[in-house]
Amino acid sequence: MGENSLEQNELHQQALLNSALENKEIHNFRDEFLSLHPYDQAQFFIGIDPVHRKQVYYFLSPEEMAFLFEQLEIEDDEYQKLLSEMNPQYAADVLSYMFTDNAVDVLNLLEKDQVASFLTMMDQKEAQEIKDLLHYEEYTAGSIMTTEYVAIEASQTVRSAMFILKNEAAKAEMIYYLYVVDHDKKLVGVISLRDLIIEDDDTMITEIMNDRVVFVSVGDDQEDIARKMKDYNFLAIPVVDFQRHLLGIITIDDIVDVIDEEASEDYSKLAAVSDMDSPSKSPFAAAKKRLPWLIVLLFLGMFTASLIGRFEDTLKQVALLAVFIPLIGGMAGNTGTQALAVAVRGIATGDVNEESKWKLVLREAGTGLITGATCGILIMIIVYLWKGELFLGLLVGISILASLVVATMSGSLIPLLMDKLNIDPAVASGPFITTINDIISILIYFGMANLFMSHLT
Amino acid sequence: MGENSLEQNELHQQALLNSALENKEIHNFRDEFLSLHPYDQAQFFIGIDPVHRKQVYYFLSPEEMAFLFEQLEIEDDEYQKLLSEMNPQYAADVLSYMFTDNAVDVLNLLEKDQVASFLTMMDQKEAQEIKDLLHYEEYTAGSIMTTEYVAIEASQTVRSAMFILKNEAAKAEMIYYLYVVDHDKKLVGVISLRDLIIEDDDTMITEIMNDRVVFVSVGDDQEDIARKMKDYNFLAIPVVDFQRHLLGIITIDDIVDVIDEEASEDYSKLAAVSDMDSPSKSPFAAAKKRLPWLIVLLFLGMFTASLIGRFEDTLKQVALLAVFIPLIGGMAGNTGTQALAVAVRGIATGDVNEESKWKLVLREAGTGLITGATCGILIMIIVYLWKGELFLGLLVGISILASLVVATMSGSLIPLLMDKLNIDPAVASGPFITTINDIISILIYFGMANLFMSHLT
Repeated sequence: MGENSLEQNELHQQALLNSALENKEIHNFRDEFLSLHPYDQAQFFIGIDPVHRKQVYYFLSPEEMAFLFEQLEIEDDEYQKLLSEMNPQYAADVLSYMFTDNAVDVLNLLEKDQVASFLTMMDQKEAQEIKDLLHYEEYTAGSIMTTEYVAIEASQTVRSAMFILKNEAAKAEMIYYLYVVDHDKKLVGVISLRDLIIEDDDTMITEIMNDRVVFVSVGDDQEDIARKMKDYNFLAIPVVDFQRHLLGIITIDDIVDVIDEEASEDYSKLAAVSDMDSPSKSPFAAAKKRLPWLIVLLFLGMFTASLIGRFEDTLKQVALLAVFIPLIGGMAGNTGTQALAVAVRGIATGDVNEESKWKLVLREAGTGLITGATCGILIMIIVYLWKGELFLGLLVGISILASLVVATMSGSLIPLLMDKLNIDPAVASGPFITTINDIISILIYFGMANLFMSHLT
Repeated sequence: MGENSLEQNELHQQALLNSALENKEIHNFRDEFLSLHPYDQAQFFIGIDPVHRKQVYYFLSPEEMAFLFEQLEIEDDEYQKLLSEMNPQYAADVLSYMFTDNAVDVLNLLEKDQVASFLTMMDQKEAQEIKDLLHYEEYTAGSIMTTEYVAIEASQTVRSAMFILKNEAAKAEMIYYLYVVDHDKKLVGVISLRDLIIEDDDTMITEIMNDRVVFVSVGDDQEDIARKMKDYNFLAIPVVDFQRHLLGIITIDDIVDVIDEEASEDYSKLAAVSDMDSPSKSPFAAAKKRLPWLIVLLFLGMFTASLIGRFEDTLKQVALLAVFIPLIGGMAGNTGTQALAVAVRGIATGDVNEESKWKLVLREAGTGLITGATCGILIMIIVYLWKGELFLGLLVGISILASLVVATMSGSLIPLLMDKLNIDPAVASGPFITTINDIISILIYFGMANLFMSHLT
């Protein structure tokens, strides 16, 4: 990776491909291009201009283009653009050569009438498979599964299973597990290709298959499935309906994407960026995504301001009080965010469940007590040494202690409550929790300041 | 998943296993236990007490225990505990039956002299393979690769390759790619088992292998490798030294773990929880992890307080100024966190690189200008309607505009600078950026307030 000679090679390759396109040398282009990994083909393809892309459609068969298409990493709206560059029948053929789950992903990005017209131009069997998958809700097993798996029957021998496998190997998405079904298409077992190739040719599948097969239901959430596949180290997992009929399989490459996306999503929500905007988007697009959150927070902030406004008289008497407002609010916000992050990740990974959730809230309260007492005593000493004001120090210290206990508890309670109400707990973003805790801590601080008033002036 | 009958089944299974352990019925236990997936075996095993665990060591062969051990998901210090429960020779055998990369992961958690004593008790060949892997630095390709791959030569036929494969299938970690090496053990090609089984027995490997094999270097960072495997949808990737000698392979299950860990790490750093602490840890353990950050932030907060202290006279004249401190600081902190999150994720995913980084900073400045102008005008109107104070509204509005531009720019500049200095940009956590932006925004606010002073009083 990154060696100079490798980069040199890549540049040389690109030059070769570009010149072949320029001079319309179909053979030279195909020789060079088809020897690349489809991911690298996609990288080259997406870097050239529409005129040269048209040349590529002309040079490659729909099947070859389908392989490339599966590897594209582009914005959602760009698929539409690419497909409209192609001859419609060519585009329909490309879609029908793609693995069904990936074709469905692309079709889901298009207008309904466009989808319908592509489906009518496709091979009928393939069109039906795609239609079946188009019905499943987003983020469920159904929406990420593929129907291109290898199924065999328990009454077969290893030899006949291998025969089926050899025939289907070219078009199945995953051939390293064979799923065993009964006459009713119900899932009854699984056998890995690893086990199959070391067995004797005449062995019966029923003798060697694993009949305690781990599966998921078609409506299961993709995040739960990702956790399961990660736990079991599977390369694929079968998907069944409520009667255990085999409907499809989910392969590890899609699960890697799910894990990556979900983690990015939790991360961007913690920072209150509704969708992680790509760094290449315009400032207007980025501002549009962030403004809704900022305006909500602005009004919450106005509410805080009006709260402090009620203590204007107190502030007039002791202007020094204002000095510690950002400190107390900031500390409460920071501890709240820490507690929030632990709770949100715990819910996401399944470490926090019905039984353990109250334990977590209590733990957080304890953590708030310890961190609050430490920071409170520290600040008391600093304020006393700095300003020589014992009571002010005491006021700030106790406010920090109380704020931190409340902040850690709310940081864990709010996401748990949201989870209970079936709202994604990650929506309780850092800035949101920070602002809530700002308000609470200022109420505590000024409430206590009024009590201490006689000692402060 | 989650059906009642399934849970019933699991409970029944556990009862069977427990009673077999209780009554020392080795055959009943083995029949039931070995039919479970190793992950489920591990789940059962970790739930029972040490006395019953000793019984399990007695009932299972080291090889069977090794499979279970690979699936454990426990805290680092618990491996030590489990190994010390076993007879030392049994423990050494378990380690030598594990896949080399996983055995190395466990050994890395133990004391040096313990590692040495286990290695002397092991089979010499296995011990040497482990020793070779123990040298690699954490987070590099070397530290996560395994040496249990299948290698063939280009001059072989499909038939002889299949023969080798059948012999090695039982002990290789990944048999679905065969790596082709020359007489010098240099990597020259790769062929998937899928391609192998559809080819004719007499075909030469050299005719069908892919000689543009994608590989990684032994010192490459695991995050870069994860991105590469995700892009190419590989189930495994070969690892070579600088002369392209094949040293090992990295399998997708380890990459899934890397992606999961790195995302968790970025997330917890954004929230300033140094390591994501497990929700089950004690409040003391949690407080210990969070306090360092909080104390740093406390001192930064004291600095902010002392800055505001310099404006005590200004505050005495216009107590109303204090009312907007949390609002301005909060808005700056929130926009800074948003910009930070985009930059950190962009660096992590490779979307932000040398060329595009200045574009990002400019983009963020533009975003700050747009969001700042929107929020600034909004707040000006609100303050005017609420307090009837035009100049105060203007002061707060302009302060917000200026703060937001500075905050978005610092939110992207600071992680980019850290990346340049080879510090993990995720260290620039949300609370850190928030506090920095707090300070800057308050300087802007009070600086401007002094300018406007004559209009305010």
